[in-house]
Amino acid sequence: MIASTLAELGEFELIDLLSQIFPQGEHVFLGPGDDAALVRTPRGHVVVAADMSVQGRHFKTEWAPARSIGRKATAANLSDINAMGGRAHSLTVSLGMPPESETKWILELASGIAEEAALVGASVVGGDVTRSDEVIIAISVLGTCDQAPVRRNGAQPGDVLALAGRQGWAAAGLAVLQRGFNSPRALVEAYQCPQVPYWAGPAAAQAGATAMLDVSDGLVADARHIAKSSGVDLEIQTDNLAVAEPMQAVSAAIGSDPIDFILSGGDDYCLLATFPAQAARPEGFTVIGSVVEMAGEHPEVRVDEVAYEGTGGHRHF
Amino acid sequence: MIASTLAELGEFELIDLLSQIFPQGEHVFLGPGDDAALVRTPRGHVVVAADMSVQGRHFKTEWAPARSIGRKATAANLSDINAMGGRAHSLTVSLGMPPESETKWILELASGIAEEAALVGASVVGGDVTRSDEVIIAISVLGTCDQAPVRRNGAQPGDVLALAGRQGWAAAGLAVLQRGFNSPRALVEAYQCPQVPYWAGPAAAQAGATAMLDVSDGLVADARHIAKSSGVDLEIQTDNLAVAEPMQAVSAAIGSDPIDFILSGGDDYCLLATFPAQAARPEGFTVIGSVVEMAGEHPEVRVDEVAYEGTGGHRHF
Repeated sequence: MIASTLAELGEFELIDLLSQIFPQGEHVFLGPGDDAALVRTPRGHVVVAADMSVQGRHFKTEWAPARSIGRKATAANLSDINAMGGRAHSLTVSLGMPPESETKWILELASGIAEEAALVGASVVGGDVTRSDEVIIAISVLGTCDQAPVRRNGAQPGDVLALAGRQGWAAAGLAVLQRGFNSPRALVEAYQCPQVPYWAGPAAAQAGATAMLDVSDGLVADARHIAKSSGVDLEIQTDNLAVAEPMQAVSAAIGSDPIDFILSGGDDYCLLATFPAQAARPEGFTVIGSVVEMAGEHPEVRVDEVAYEGTGGHRHF
Repeated sequence: MIASTLAELGEFELIDLLSQIFPQGEHVFLGPGDDAALVRTPRGHVVVAADMSVQGRHFKTEWAPARSIGRKATAANLSDINAMGGRAHSLTVSLGMPPESETKWILELASGIAEEAALVGASVVGGDVTRSDEVIIAISVLGTCDQAPVRRNGAQPGDVLALAGRQGWAAAGLAVLQRGFNSPRALVEAYQCPQVPYWAGPAAAQAGATAMLDVSDGLVADARHIAKSSGVDLEIQTDNLAVAEPMQAVSAAIGSDPIDFILSGGDDYCLLATFPAQAARPEGFTVIGSVVEMAGEHPEVRVDEVAYEGTGGHRHF
């Protein structure tokens, strides 16, 4: 019989329970339970990133089950390694939890973290549990690149701009939830937990992608990072953007343009990459535009030949 | 002219300012600014840990300047690598900040993080900034061991138990602050920012330490981890514990036993290690007791031959 709240359970009991949820891969010499973990890094380097999810800001417990919240917080981290063309192998997970948190909820959150990590074969090797007013999920992720990492600064005029994975689904799902609805389910589920194209990052690197990032804040907002880092303009043709059927239904119902979900929506963690025009692109990448010389003084992103006027992404503060 | 609050400054401006505060070491192939950082790991492994500090729980902004808060949050992480006998080389720092946070305060916090990292030559290579109600500092740390890491499970009956660094100072400083006082300064400063014996971890590993950890929760509480992991009893002789002069003064003033600060106090991040009796211990380690066979059914820690009855450490929930 497990204590029903964290206050009753205590820190060390919780850590024991969590350790049982996280299997350790072969690359882990020493997993959770000591001051630090010890992990093999075969190519003499580590690709490392960190991403923190905060209750009320990145997730609402009334809008998603604990398992999905854990999966999404993990996906945001794994996606950063994917966006370098790498493969994630290890995670640390620091949880901030109110003492009245239900043990069941925390263990489901952890199961979601383990589930998402298992998609790429990564292990949760360490972390921390502490008390906080809001639920905080602070993850760091370690990975390896089989070739040079794909940065944001290599896009060249003449390259094509291509997208892998779903884009706009999560934003449409959020619009549904914000209006108090629960369907279309596919969109709500896309908001609750992204389907990250983990195959696409290493494949793009292998295929010679010149620049790449994951779209977490918004397609145009994130495209601007590539434009700025590379010193180029990007042109997106909306005719090339796939508008999924449920997205059209939602837009019709709330009187919006479904293209706006795609252009300004975040949280899908699809990949946006540039490739030399003659390169063979990996299957699953769709060309949505092109890289051109800067037309003005500053790098910009144009949509159907016009500088995009939409909100262009998530504002954190 | 820098915007005075985070709400005015915005996320990307803040990240730009932070990036200027964190110098990048030679082992960093690619620092902040992309989806992930790329770090050299010379010995084919990485020692990794994570530790999160939460406002009101791990620090109070009225009890310490931002710089000390940053240093202490970083020290807690670097200390975990020290406790394995390793050397830290890289950090990720995820900050949760209320929008009304003062830019100046955040930049001083970051300067403190950079200062503490510089003590061991570590670089802040990435992280995240997000909005939260409380100030959250979630750090992960990467390091390398020059020899096998020192775990908690290797203590053998016949070994000596030894301590490096200050212990009890932070607890005494906290007792001072909790009563509304500001002196003795040395104790208050010890609470605000620990002086971690970074030299001692690698030296102990080199000298053949059989078990080691850093004391963050309390001397006896943390000693119990070694006892439990190693399946031994530990005996501490209080005659061997150094009671610093200001600690005696505070104890006299508040009517407590200074030994209690040492036995149950945390937050100093000193190292507790076991060594074979005949091993040459590194300078700076003081023998405070010994490792003996388990007397009862469960591993225990005895102080002056009696099982310790004090609170025995920090309760997180």
